[in-house]
Parts: sequence; C-alpha cells; structure tokens
Amino acid sequence: MSRIPQDLHPVLIETANEMAAAARAAILPYFRNPELMADNKDEDGFDPVTEADRAAEAAMRHVLQQRRPMDSIFGEEMGQHEGDSGLTWVLDPIDGTRGFLSGTPTWGVLIALSDQDGPVMGIVDQPYIGERFFGGFGQAYCDGPVGRRSLHVRKGVTLDEAILFSTFPEVGSVDEGRAFRNLAKRVKLVRYGMDCYAYALLAAGQIDLVVEAGLNAYDIQGPQAVIEAAGGIVTDWNGGPAHNGGRIIAAASEEIHAAALELLHDGLATI
Amino acid sequence: MSRIPQDLHPVLIETANEMAAAARAAILPYFRNPELMADNKDEDGFDPVTEADRAAEAAMRHVLQQRRPMDSIFGEEMGQHEGDSGLTWVLDPIDGTRGFLSGTPTWGVLIALSDQDGPVMGIVDQPYIGERFFGGFGQAYCDGPVGRRSLHVRKGVTLDEAILFSTFPEVGSVDEGRAFRNLAKRVKLVRYGMDCYAYALLAAGQIDLVVEAGLNAYDIQGPQAVIEAAGGIVTDWNGGPAHNGGRIIAAASEEIHAAALELLHDGLATI
Repeated sequence: MSRIPQDLHPVLIETANEMAAAARAAILPYFRNPELMADNKDEDGFDPVTEADRAAEAAMRHVLQQRRPMDSIFGEEMGQHEGDSGLTWVLDPIDGTRGFLSGTPTWGVLIALSDQDGPVMGIVDQPYIGERFFGGFGQAYCDGPVGRRSLHVRKGVTLDEAILFSTFPEVGSVDEGRAFRNLAKRVKLVRYGMDCYAYALLAAGQIDLVVEAGLNAYDIQGPQAVIEAAGGIVTDWNGGPAHNGGRIIAAASEEIHAAALELLHDGLATI
Repeated sequence: MSRIPQDLHPVLIETANEMAAAARAAILPYFRNPELMADNKDEDGFDPVTEADRAAEAAMRHVLQQRRPMDSIFGEEMGQHEGDSGLTWVLDPIDGTRGFLSGTPTWGVLIALSDQDGPVMGIVDQPYIGERFFGGFGQAYCDGPVGRRSLHVRKGVTLDEAILFSTFPEVGSVDEGRAFRNLAKRVKLVRYGMDCYAYALLAAGQIDLVVEAGLNAYDIQGPQAVIEAAGGIVTDWNGGPAHNGGRIIAAASEEIHAAALELLHDGLATI
C-alpha cells in the first residue's frame, strides 16, 4: 500500500516527531515576545521572516543530519540539500508568519516526507497549543490538549451545507478571487484567517473545503499528507497533483471536491 | 481608583475564575465532537446555539447562585436575573459559535462584571488552549500554556504600521463595510476570523485595532475590561461608551484610536 518499505516507517515517524519537537522548542521563546525581531524578505509586500523561522528550520535540519543524512531536504528558509535515498523532507518552519506576528495560535510547523509522487507522511504542529496533527502510513491522529484523537474527514455533507476556509478574502489574483467567490456564494459558511490550521480542521472532520492560490510546495505537502491519511482529497484547481503548490483545493469528499472544482472553473471563465 | 470596594476584589476575582473553570468543563466535551448537536436560533441566518453554550451558561449561573446571589446576571442564552447589589455579571458562554462549529481554537467564554457605567473586570477564556485573559482591579494578565504573562497593549505604532482585525470582511451593513474598508486600506495588515480572540491579542500587545459592528453587550464587555486593564481603549465608532454593544472599535493607543475613528467617519459619510 505505502510506497515506503514498512520496516522504515517507525524510524521515519520518530524522526518527524523529533523534528516537530525541536521546532517547537526553537520557536516558542519567540512567540508573543515583544522583542521579536521581524525581517522583511519581500520589499514590496509584508512577508516577515522571523528569527524563530530560521531557528526552527536549523533545529529540524540538525535532527535530519543525525538521523537521516541520506535524505534530501527542501526547506522554506535554507533551500535544498541533496541526498540519495529518493526521499525528501519538505519543511515550512512557520507557515502563517503574519498570523504568528499577530499572535494568533493558528500558524504551524509543516513537515512532509515525500518521494517523486508527492508526500507520504506529514505533520502540522501548533507549538503554542501543543497540538500535533499527524498523517501517513495508514494512520491519522491529533495529539493535543485533550489527548489523542483519530482524524477522519466528514462525509455526507452537500456543498450547500459545507464550511469553506481560505486564509484571506482576496485569495490570489483578480481571477482567482472571482473563482473563489463563485464557489463561496454556494456554501453555508466561509471563514478566513487560519493559515495551515484550516487544513488540520478539514482532516479533523470540522470543515469541508479549503481553497487557496499561490501556495509553495512546502505550504501544502505537510497538510496534504495529513488530509489524505484522514480520507480527504487534495489537488490543484484542475484536479491534478497538489504537491508542487499553486492553486490548491482540499475537500472532505469526492462529491464536494467535484462540485467545488466546477464552480471554480465557471468562476475563472466568467468575464 | 476602582468603583468597587477593595475588600470585595478577591471574592469577585475568585468567583470569575470559578465561573470560567466551570464553563470550560461544561464546554470541552462538546468541542470537535462529531456528535455535537447544533440548534439554529435564527431561522434566516446561521447562528447556531449548541448544547455547550447552554451547559456553560448554566454552569456559570450555578456558581453565581452559590457565591453571589445578590448580583444581577445578563446572559446570552438565559436572559436576565435581577439582583440588588448594583453589580451585573454579563455572560457570553461561547462567543464565536461559527468558529466553535468549525473547530477553530479562537472562540471564547466571555465574563464581565459591570456596574451602571460598564465593565470593571472581565475574562476572555479559551478552554481548548487552556488560556485565560484577565483584566480588572488594576491587574491584566494571561494564564496559558507558557505560564502567566502580564498584558500590555503596545504603544508607539502609527496607523500605517498597525495590524487590524475584524471577524469577517463584510463587517456589518453596506455602510459599515465601506467605513471599515476606508480604514483597512490605511493599515499595514488586516486579518479576519478570530472572534473575541482578536480583543485578547490587542490586550497582549500583538495587534493594534479591532473594529466590528452589530455587537451585543455580552460580546464586548468581557474583552473591554481586559483591554482597558491592559492600557487600551474601547469605544463605539463615535468615541462614546462601548458597553452596550453596536459598532465597536478597540485600539492600543489614543493616537491610533483617533486616526481610525476619523477614517471610519469619512467612510460612513462617503456615498
């Protein structure tokens, strides 16, 4: 079933958890710290990279250096490392830096383990809450303040009953925003502002759709693995592979996925 | 300084914390529970009242019956109780029911103790995170996953550097939405989706403005007490008292408050 030999699963799961724990320890001293220093890596926009971001990626790379030096690494902050195992760790040390700077507890550490066909295992970790969503190798669960709960997307919800999330109302380009609104007007509830946490809520069976645009590979691979392990679907807006980023849709069921894709397409086509 | 005799402060603080603890215990079994039953108290819209909502208000009222039967109660779910102490407990057992149903960790239990001039003490409690923001009687602090931190709004931020939150992008009526956007285009960052948690972030010095419309008294009195105790300002959009709800602005500093009020007024006036 899995594309990774079964005898490797335990060490890979352990490594991922050790990385998430190291990232937590590296980030938490910076969170809601008034002396937090924010750099600005995009002159035009507002895309702050914090010391925490770099410290967390360094901490995760240190774990990999010790435990899995043969694997490749693709990280948001520190780029590419080439291994020879055919496996790549795809890392976003802080997904949702604007949320992080605002103090919201809905940013996350994203970790994925991927082969050439996309992620096979992933973690979405929220260090402040102390909550870790794991998916891969036939398991999907959340460890958090109320203990461990298994993750299952919810089924049997029609599009007009669905809850849809996106990080901000503009979504992306003018076209992408129009496509999103063409979908949004057909669902029961639309909410914003959750960054990667929205994907975790979909895996947990709380919401039905997440639609975003302009994502990077490291923004989606961790959440994708968790959602797929929980029974959900993650693709691009054409129904193709999601793991390279771009325009992304995550859905709890095939029915909602198909209905939403059609509305996004109709919205893109409208002049 | 305070309008309440000092010898009463300890029992009132204890009572408020006991209420928040009782509400937490009542609510948590329902949160992210797939069997959660949601009623719909508004035929036209989407304003679910959960069993959790009612259980939490009942639990808080039980604490008051035992400890402060002489005080009045005004609660979202169970209406008015008339006492004769001149003090009223203003309760919103779950602020952010849509967020609650979506599984976000940014709804809250709101508790305020008020006299005829508004709140003198308040709590914003997030049961899932295990986080309690308290303000009143000269104290403002947050007890949470990383221990106790004192709360101070941030000063010295100009409007064009400010972070502004509101719960959803429409904000309220067409006029109110236009006024909001007239302000929003002048700040550094606008984020949505946090319900009462946005006010807590303002008290914690993470953000600078929260602007909303159509609030009820019980939506704002708890957050107002916390923000005022942390050094911030909460008024209506005319600069008048906020404790009856309506159009609300919360600001970290007088400078930002004044600048934002002007832009809201200009926005309302524009045809």
